Amino acid sequence: MRATLIYGDHDIRLEDVPDPVLSTGGDAIVRVVAACVCGSDLWPYRGVVPTKAPKRIGHEFVGIVESVGPDVAKIKVGDFVIAPFYDCDMTCVNCLNGVSTSCLHGGWWGADDRSGAFADGGQGEFVRVPHADGSLVATPGLPADELIPGLLSLADVMGTGHHAAVSAGVTTGSTVVVVGDGAVGLCGVLAAKRLGASRIVAMSRHADRQAVAREFGATDIVEERGPEGIARIKELFDGIGPDCVLECVGTTESMDQALRSVRPGGTVGYVGVPNGGSELPIRLMFSSNVGANGGVAPVRNYIDELLPEVLSGAINPGRVFDLELPLAEVAEAYAAMDERRAIKVLLRP
Amino acid sequence: MRATLIYGDHDIRLEDVPDPVLSTGGDAIVRVVAACVCGSDLWPYRGVVPTKAPKRIGHEFVGIVESVGPDVAKIKVGDFVIAPFYDCDMTCVNCLNGVSTSCLHGGWWGADDRSGAFADGGQGEFVRVPHADGSLVATPGLPADELIPGLLSLADVMGTGHHAAVSAGVTTGSTVVVVGDGAVGLCGVLAAKRLGASRIVAMSRHADRQAVAREFGATDIVEERGPEGIARIKELFDGIGPDCVLECVGTTESMDQALRSVRPGGTVGYVGVPNGGSELPIRLMFSSNVGANGGVAPVRNYIDELLPEVLSGAINPGRVFDLELPLAEVAEAYAAMDERRAIKVLLRP
Repeated sequence: MRATLIYGDHDIRLEDVPDPVLSTGGDAIVRVVAACVCGSDLWPYRGVVPTKAPKRIGHEFVGIVESVGPDVAKIKVGDFVIAPFYDCDMTCVNCLNGVSTSCLHGGWWGADDRSGAFADGGQGEFVRVPHADGSLVATPGLPADELIPGLLSLADVMGTGHHAAVSAGVTTGSTVVVVGDGAVGLCGVLAAKRLGASRIVAMSRHADRQAVAREFGATDIVEERGPEGIARIKELFDGIGPDCVLECVGTTESMDQALRSVRPGGTVGYVGVPNGGSELPIRLMFSSNVGANGGVAPVRNYIDELLPEVLSGAINPGRVFDLELPLAEVAEAYAAMDERRAIKVLLRP
Repeated sequence: MRATLIYGDHDIRLEDVPDPVLSTGGDAIVRVVAACVCGSDLWPYRGVVPTKAPKRIGHEFVGIVESVGPDVAKIKVGDFVIAPFYDCDMTCVNCLNGVSTSCLHGGWWGADDRSGAFADGGQGEFVRVPHADGSLVATPGLPADELIPGLLSLADVMGTGHHAAVSAGVTTGSTVVVVGDGAVGLCGVLAAKRLGASRIVAMSRHADRQAVAREFGATDIVEERGPEGIARIKELFDGIGPDCVLECVGTTESMDQALRSVRPGGTVGYVGVPNGGSELPIRLMFSSNVGANGGVAPVRNYIDELLPEVLSGAINPGRVFDLELPLAEVAEAYAAMDERRAIKVLLRP
């Protein structure tokens, strides 16, 4: 089959690789219907995270189940399934506690599972899913084609934006600021709206992203950053700041923006993969009772709640995909996101 | 009047100082009935926080109102009152948001208020309270003498332990570990019990403190610290850790103990004044979805909820006071706490 590998800085290649084979009893082979490129894939693409040796990449996909191992009970051949951006069993204590990203038996796409068998990356034609009954969620019947982007967003960005909002404690009437206008930040706006926020500020400098943010429920746009951005946010909220800030980037600057914008006693929900190199400033947080909650989003735990709303059209997170390319053009997909020509690119094998 | 000053490392003196005078209209003079020494007073006492010039000290007191300014509406001469460890107006947006430690017009004992008039330290005979109607809470009638320690605990330690538990998200059925066996940590045990925790581990190596912890609701005691302490905690909770950890010390070691003990997706509620010099490790927190909430406890906001239970005897946080001395022996009170001969010392002017 064909699958995507990263070789290094700005070097993405589609290559022939071995077809996956069932091996552990509880696994499944999924034929990928749609995959995508994540903002976090850009860290190795940009060389911020070095790539020591060529390796498979991609962690968001939806598809059709081709085959299942003898121990798979819930997932069936022919099911249309959503996979979260990691593998998990949904039976261990961490999964049951709602933190399936800390699954005791789980793992990551593009790496060996705990039995030593390979779990393919998501940007390819097929993926072996180690814990089929845990990781995969089947839709009721085959979804209409126009629903594919929304369903694919449940693999990562919509669940991650939702995690930011939940972690920040967004509830009915909350005032919210979202730092980051990538797909996750935009989904954070949608999640905050869905949870009842009364006012949502999107921090964005790009007209296309501002438009999606408005469509998702943003009531205000702030283009300033740094000290000017903080001053503008304070000004918008009684001089003290909003109840909740969603940090959806992961740099030192974005976290600083979040922590210094939120009101005393407010909460930062953060989901940006930390790449800034600095830690959380405890004295700042202590003196004003600013909390920090979040982390790598347990999106599998959120699919059951969000899926019905995607299927009914109540929410349309698939709107973050503004470019669709065949898998053969995966290198162009990375370039388009890297150069901000696209918010998020959907790939069709 | 007589009041306590700190001159420097292990140098505490009771001296004659000017009597306070009403000056701002909304203030009151309180005759101190009982005061105490705080664990945080030991930072300057031990020289960890340098004392540049002699200054008044003490921030926990209860007393009788001697006089009030013309703008005071709620508090009356003769009232028995509890003061939080800071001054606040309880009318600004931060106070109304439940974060009275961030009062827009408040301040600290032993320092000038925002009008430039002095607000006395708590370890003295009288204190001028800048915002009498905001800061002070009057009891219904004069309390019995045996209730004084419990009422005094609402000025800081009980409210602070409660804040740690609330910040850690303790609720019915929570599993909880408390790091720190000072008065705040012990009150954290009591607060966790009161909020419905099903299992509470007190980390303590001192028999007298272990006994109070048990009395307050601790189900287990762990004496180990560092990696051994973390391993012991993990072992007690399914190998993964408790839902909530209350960090009630403020050192790098205690915060590390807290963050590495809590389960994935769990929360650290922290109230120890940060003196360790290090920041919160974001990668550790991100990878396991460990949240950190808390800060300088807005105890004034908690007095209304906790006071009836102290008055009824439903909770007895005053149990943390295990030594009572006349104000004249304030230097000995510091020494007793510094040398861990006492958990907390009550002073009677």
